[in-house]
Amino acid sequence: MYPTPIATLIEQLARLPGVGPKTAQRMAFFLLHLPSGEAERLADAIVEARRRIRYCSVCFNFTEDDPCTLCADPRRDDAQIVVVEQPKDVIAIEKTREYRGRYHVLHGAISPMDGVGPDDLRVRELLARLHGGTVREVILATSSSLEGEATALYLARLLKPLGVQVTRIARGIPMGGDLDYTDEVTLLKALEGRQAL
Amino acid sequence: MYPTPIATLIEQLARLPGVGPKTAQRMAFFLLHLPSGEAERLADAIVEARRRIRYCSVCFNFTEDDPCTLCADPRRDDAQIVVVEQPKDVIAIEKTREYRGRYHVLHGAISPMDGVGPDDLRVRELLARLHGGTVREVILATSSSLEGEATALYLARLLKPLGVQVTRIARGIPMGGDLDYTDEVTLLKALEGRQAL
Repeated sequence: MYPTPIATLIEQLARLPGVGPKTAQRMAFFLLHLPSGEAERLADAIVEARRRIRYCSVCFNFTEDDPCTLCADPRRDDAQIVVVEQPKDVIAIEKTREYRGRYHVLHGAISPMDGVGPDDLRVRELLARLHGGTVREVILATSSSLEGEATALYLARLLKPLGVQVTRIARGIPMGGDLDYTDEVTLLKALEGRQAL
Repeated sequence: MYPTPIATLIEQLARLPGVGPKTAQRMAFFLLHLPSGEAERLADAIVEARRRIRYCSVCFNFTEDDPCTLCADPRRDDAQIVVVEQPKDVIAIEKTREYRGRYHVLHGAISPMDGVGPDDLRVRELLARLHGGTVREVILATSSSLEGEATALYLARLLKPLGVQVTRIARGIPMGGDLDYTDEVTLLKALEGRQAL
């Protein structure tokens, strides 16, 4: 019922994650009501990001320059690699300001339900990084979801025979977390991961 | 922390209605992960919609051709004008397949809280359409929100002296609606608007 350009815009917006037809419609009219040039800034940002952002050939994080700033930084420790699912996880760990090693971004997690296997992730590229012998520890920081745990387990089995130390980030009650409100699996992991004081 | 093109993309996506920083981040990575050319289709859709869509000079609905198909259709009745807030309201009424008159889109509702007065809406243009004397009835179909009701009241006072019949769409319990779950104001309107059977 809408003119074709509006229908196309709604259709394209509805492809975004978490956006249904009604939200897409609201977004489309928002964009059409913006002052001249404002909506085009979003279009430009999409085109520019796609044009300028590539995968780092070392860690496969998104980057403008290859290798990325984290991989190119000579002050960082080559002996440690933190393996994460997504680029946003790198940002999350960097925010702790404690970790000084390298990263490896898988771009997903193993999920048979969604048809995602190890070959769809940057697993082969991770193995290649371990060949030189510089890496002493691989820290598996995939998420604590079913898929993240499966991926960590898979990688642990794959990497241990290579003589590298493989660790998994701790799962337990979050800071400020109430035991009463913590689910049983988390509590079990917290008990299993208990440490001497 | 993100490379500039990603940060800019997240910032621009976060301007969309209902999109916070976290959702914008998820959308940005979704767009970056799409196969080549796919993200650009959204960018193109935005640019195309902005380039090809304008306001109809008669009813102020969004259109590719001026006047729009609804205003240009000779089979529609010039004596009736339904006044709505948004283009999507025109679609909603057209879906009933019953109304055969014309439309007028205000592009908003009077809202002193948001600084929107009659001059920010297409009110002057509505008045201009009544000058010829062809229009016999103006049906106020603004929404039933505080702003929609205020706009309807304002327009009724403005249009009645011009000798045109001014009506308001009925407010009442929706079809399939349970009285028990209907708020008091709606129930009051339903009682007030009761009709002989």
